[in-house]
Amino acid sequence: MATVQVELGERSYSIFIEQALLPKVGALIRQHLPKAARALVITDDRVGPRYAATLLQGLEQAGVVSRVATFPAGESSKSLAVAGQLYSECVEAGLERSSVIVALGGGVVGDLAGFVAATYLRGLPFVQVPTTLLAQVDSSVGGKTGVDLPAGKNLVGAFHQPTLVAADLDVLRTLPQREVNAGMAEVVKHAIIRDPALLSYLEDEVEAVTRLDPVVMERVVARNCEIKAAVVGADERESGLRAILNFGHTIGHAVEALLGYSGWLHGECVAVGMMGALALSQEAGVLRDRALCVRLEHLLVRLGLPFRLPPSVGLADLAPLMQRDKKVESGRIRWVLVREAGDVVVTPDISPESLEQALRRIAG
Amino acid sequence: MATVQVELGERSYSIFIEQALLPKVGALIRQHLPKAARALVITDDRVGPRYAATLLQGLEQAGVVSRVATFPAGESSKSLAVAGQLYSECVEAGLERSSVIVALGGGVVGDLAGFVAATYLRGLPFVQVPTTLLAQVDSSVGGKTGVDLPAGKNLVGAFHQPTLVAADLDVLRTLPQREVNAGMAEVVKHAIIRDPALLSYLEDEVEAVTRLDPVVMERVVARNCEIKAAVVGADERESGLRAILNFGHTIGHAVEALLGYSGWLHGECVAVGMMGALALSQEAGVLRDRALCVRLEHLLVRLGLPFRLPPSVGLADLAPLMQRDKKVESGRIRWVLVREAGDVVVTPDISPESLEQALRRIAG
Repeated sequence: MATVQVELGERSYSIFIEQALLPKVGALIRQHLPKAARALVITDDRVGPRYAATLLQGLEQAGVVSRVATFPAGESSKSLAVAGQLYSECVEAGLERSSVIVALGGGVVGDLAGFVAATYLRGLPFVQVPTTLLAQVDSSVGGKTGVDLPAGKNLVGAFHQPTLVAADLDVLRTLPQREVNAGMAEVVKHAIIRDPALLSYLEDEVEAVTRLDPVVMERVVARNCEIKAAVVGADERESGLRAILNFGHTIGHAVEALLGYSGWLHGECVAVGMMGALALSQEAGVLRDRALCVRLEHLLVRLGLPFRLPPSVGLADLAPLMQRDKKVESGRIRWVLVREAGDVVVTPDISPESLEQALRRIAG
Repeated sequence: MATVQVELGERSYSIFIEQALLPKVGALIRQHLPKAARALVITDDRVGPRYAATLLQGLEQAGVVSRVATFPAGESSKSLAVAGQLYSECVEAGLERSSVIVALGGGVVGDLAGFVAATYLRGLPFVQVPTTLLAQVDSSVGGKTGVDLPAGKNLVGAFHQPTLVAADLDVLRTLPQREVNAGMAEVVKHAIIRDPALLSYLEDEVEAVTRLDPVVMERVVARNCEIKAAVVGADERESGLRAILNFGHTIGHAVEALLGYSGWLHGECVAVGMMGALALSQEAGVLRDRALCVRLEHLLVRLGLPFRLPPSVGLADLAPLMQRDKKVESGRIRWVLVREAGDVVVTPDISPESLEQALRRIAG
């Protein structure tokens, strides 16, 4: 088993990464939250039917009275209305402040269950059991929780760190290949912003990654959690360094919004967004390692990820959407640009011409 | 002007208490939040028409682009649905993470606006401008925010400290006398749990308090903020000491719920709740200063506050409602009992017989 420690002072916690971990999560919770007599497992109707029973059995064996709340899978459930239904489930489950909420699922489940845990009774302990690659390497680490508003994604939320994260590598095997690939986009992102050695490793092991080789994946998941944990540990509330995690996301989020959050997966949009951000790094004269554009493109191709915008997306449509990003400060987009793998810079000083040139280079 | 400092490490803040403070709040905000280019003032339709314009003018003069969002006055607005409408107002107002949300009103406005501030964009700076005595001496201090669920009050919320609190003593003059009196219940509570000298001062100055003498009220409001700030500073997240603030509230909340949150004001229910908690302190053999029961009763009478349960409330109905309190741990109510003024103890070890005896003594 790999264990990654997220250092956040009194909110520090461990990420456990292992095959066949799901049946042991109940015992882990008992060990880390000895006062939790009750649990509410929150999951969606895609993940729940497959994995909730195993998790529940482990919880009951550990002496934790547990109940499952299931909502319809998909981003459209990440709403205040569904949060309201889940609060009712918390009441029904008789949760007290010492009880625990367990998120079993991908990013949507983690964000929504985390928001409920952050706000029910002004905050309950929270455990993440991420079941997608994206959630295991990215969204389950860092304490961001939230729901969407009609006006935009994640506009409402809270920072709420989990007590522990349990990533079972076996559950990745039931994911569609396309979803595994999309999760790899965030892995590539972490490599580019923080770890040139990981980038080389991914290039060497892309086939093993694609077939979810357990030895390689334990290393990949653990290393990604380490990278994200280090960034989050240095800047929990997103006031500085954490902005670098937004690499590829300024364009990526705009593409997602233009596509109406359907058709392309988040990771696919981020893949193209990273290509755009690299092109912009070059146009802005920041990029020192010019080979990086080609390396990224090749890696994305081998991972089955897009590297050009969808043909339906017009370049002129992207700008206003990028302007609406949560990270915009006084109307200025804070771009994450790359000097070379592992060396990034955050800057608002981008000319409209450079941006237009960069977007043209990734046009579909 | 009196200033009380709330010591919470990097979340420390000041409470300003003064007559004619409202027009200066804009400048205070500018000074404490120099990056806040935009503000959303959240208020209700009772307070807004009277005071929002003055606040807004001060904000605009200080160079803060401001907008007002108004909701219907009353506890029934403290819902997820109204929070959802206020999030839309945040979007309309173009709030960014550096923007500020200003709560102008009593406890309901502070709780609701505070919750929106705690969760919009995962947390914005927040300023409290409390306009009721209850809010000035109690609910605006401590960082508790929240909304109600059908199943109970304040079941959803967050801890979110304000950047500053501005209590204008003049606005108290437009309150109905009954609401002033109800606010005094929390003042008496603070005196009993923490400050025998304040208790004597209140007994001496009850007439001056009732007519809102500005010199006496500045002292009363400031001292109450100091007491609450000290308790909150020692226990921000309500894991220990902060429980003593619940004195009188275990029974008080149950009475409120039984009355359907109408008819009696919160402070009136707390007044009777304190009488019940004192009686219980005596029945449980904890109370050393037996004269305190009579002193409290006399003071409540002079403040125009009730000291017996409403006749419509049956003693048997109270127990199940007390059991549902947020502070119940593993099904056990944590009672705040009094040894003497300024000396309280929190205990779950109360026999049903003692409780029954105590409730009988406050029966209406």
